[in-house]
Amino acid sequence: MPSATIICTGLVERIGLNNAKLKYEVGEKAHEQIGDIPNHKVGLQMVAKYLLDDDIGVIKSPSEIEAVGHRVVHGGSKFSETTEITASVKENIKELFSLAPLHNPANLEGILVAQEIFPKAKQIAVFDTAFHQTIPAEAYKYAISSEFLEKHNIRMYGFHGTSHKYVSEKAQEYLGKQHSGKLVSLHLGNGCSATAIKDGKSIDHSLGFAPMNGLIMGTRSGDIDPSVVFYLIKNLGYSVDEANELLNKKSGMLGLTGFSDNRDIASAAASGDLKSQEALLMNAYRIKKFIGAYISVLNGIDALIFTAGIGENASNIRKMACEDLSFFGIEIDDEKNEQRLEGIREIQSKNSKVKILIIPTNEELEIAKQTYSLLN
Amino acid sequence: MPSATIICTGLVERIGLNNAKLKYEVGEKAHEQIGDIPNHKVGLQMVAKYLLDDDIGVIKSPSEIEAVGHRVVHGGSKFSETTEITASVKENIKELFSLAPLHNPANLEGILVAQEIFPKAKQIAVFDTAFHQTIPAEAYKYAISSEFLEKHNIRMYGFHGTSHKYVSEKAQEYLGKQHSGKLVSLHLGNGCSATAIKDGKSIDHSLGFAPMNGLIMGTRSGDIDPSVVFYLIKNLGYSVDEANELLNKKSGMLGLTGFSDNRDIASAAASGDLKSQEALLMNAYRIKKFIGAYISVLNGIDALIFTAGIGENASNIRKMACEDLSFFGIEIDDEKNEQRLEGIREIQSKNSKVKILIIPTNEELEIAKQTYSLLN
Repeated sequence: MPSATIICTGLVERIGLNNAKLKYEVGEKAHEQIGDIPNHKVGLQMVAKYLLDDDIGVIKSPSEIEAVGHRVVHGGSKFSETTEITASVKENIKELFSLAPLHNPANLEGILVAQEIFPKAKQIAVFDTAFHQTIPAEAYKYAISSEFLEKHNIRMYGFHGTSHKYVSEKAQEYLGKQHSGKLVSLHLGNGCSATAIKDGKSIDHSLGFAPMNGLIMGTRSGDIDPSVVFYLIKNLGYSVDEANELLNKKSGMLGLTGFSDNRDIASAAASGDLKSQEALLMNAYRIKKFIGAYISVLNGIDALIFTAGIGENASNIRKMACEDLSFFGIEIDDEKNEQRLEGIREIQSKNSKVKILIIPTNEELEIAKQTYSLLN
Repeated sequence: MPSATIICTGLVERIGLNNAKLKYEVGEKAHEQIGDIPNHKVGLQMVAKYLLDDDIGVIKSPSEIEAVGHRVVHGGSKFSETTEITASVKENIKELFSLAPLHNPANLEGILVAQEIFPKAKQIAVFDTAFHQTIPAEAYKYAISSEFLEKHNIRMYGFHGTSHKYVSEKAQEYLGKQHSGKLVSLHLGNGCSATAIKDGKSIDHSLGFAPMNGLIMGTRSGDIDPSVVFYLIKNLGYSVDEANELLNKKSGMLGLTGFSDNRDIASAAASGDLKSQEALLMNAYRIKKFIGAYISVLNGIDALIFTAGIGENASNIRKMACEDLSFFGIEIDDEKNEQRLEGIREIQSKNSKVKILIIPTNEELEIAKQTYSLLN
């Protein structure tokens, strides 16, 4: 930094499962290791070994690392900005475990292990919720007594903020500020969310108190009438935990089709599987409603952004989500939508009044940039 | 019937509470009785006495009544049309108690009492859910495994159908079919809902499995991240019933302001009460998002309809809900919006591309019409 050159890159997957995998790339050489990685600590220790390796490593001593940037999913109401991690910050991240039980505990473990391995480095937390701290009260408050917010911090927080921030800034650079004042950003990956962005600031967002509602996701239901929760428990004998797990881990595209990966669903749909066809339609329909809702609160739209795994790669979802939106001036070009290119690209038709952009997200780079800028 | 002349009209209020009230109007004479009305049976027996009274009654014998039309809130998936009530229909209404515990039991009691009092009359059920049976699968299905629909009938049903049907037909008559193909109907009363109507058919709607989600209501929260339900139970010690009661009876405008009546809230807001001001803003903001979402799925809009107690009378909510929607071609005329007139009226500005209509709803008339048409 600040040149933002990638020196090496890597990924640890399937921690605690069979055939866990570590990938490590430096220059043009890719290394892969499959085997037992019981927990995050062991995973990060393995990463450190690769970084320090005589042959393929990129540093000679852990002390060369000046800072480690951590993605932390839930920053609650306390953190509206990237923050150096102190003992009290760790305490705060811990207090938020109950709001993000799948994410914050692993994030804190990553911090603790990084402190052990790189004791001289500053540890920096970049919160997924931070970008959404500009959302106004009428959008982030729920229609319940204010004591739930005041005493228990129950409100909409929003997630995927690092990604929405990154792609919306890219859109502003690409289009110029005059043509990017009103953006709707669609982060469609394993988790999915939509954000309304006005003059660079998030003003509304589809995920809520926890990353569960809004758009249909890989295994999460997204929006559902809360009465269904009560019915599952009172009438169908579900325990509270079972109902929660059902909606978080066994619903969404997985619940509808039996597959959670959009590639499997697209190919099943293409082979005539009716459930997959309908699930794709439901998914796109839900996206369309959020596009309309956010155009309403923005009173207009300059550009629609697709990003993350599905948003960048699934031309079928993009096509279905943009269909029949001519009233908004949104018109996709089918040919451009099908081309598989790198970098930022426009996929609207010539007549479209609204730009439709695919912008590859890069949360790692955004975290590195924010970490670097906090240090300087 | 079929002349739709009102012979007499009445209302029984506060059944089972202090100072229950019966109102009865015939010609220009209004009668009122305040006192103890312990249950629906006693209430309807009192109604029958007024109807049969030598002085102010309108019939000489119960056998003069040929049919009684009943509003039944939940018709589930079984009833897509107005239906004569047989033993098996009563059984079906009973089976749906768990889906509408506040409404269906009282509706069935009304039917049983009416059968006792008017044994020769046909009893007809008009279902609030029926109008929404045209909603397509991508809108009525939730993103959970299909077994919940197939085995347990969990889906979006929609409510206030009798009202949305009535006002959308009135809009079609008023505007002509060419200019009413795409309607967004806002029923804002004690319960609130929005419906997208295409060529006379409901295609999407804001209430769901039970009449609880969507717009902010008098005492109901409307849309809320289901994680909040889990948090109330797991972290704040609420029982399942308490959480359900909280969201149904102590939330919405009541939870936000301490008042459930919009007139009280408007006057508190006018006197500077910040909570009331914010609650009105939240309420209108939520309505705006539904307007946008439904314009999206309709790919356009010919007219926006306001109806029911708040929709017909609360100029403040109408004004706030239509503000800054010029991108859609929606522009309210402040002066017309403030006029208190009878009947259907237009309140859009001269430049508005979209008609904004106030249409008084008349569920009683709609029920009478449907009852009459079933008999003939």
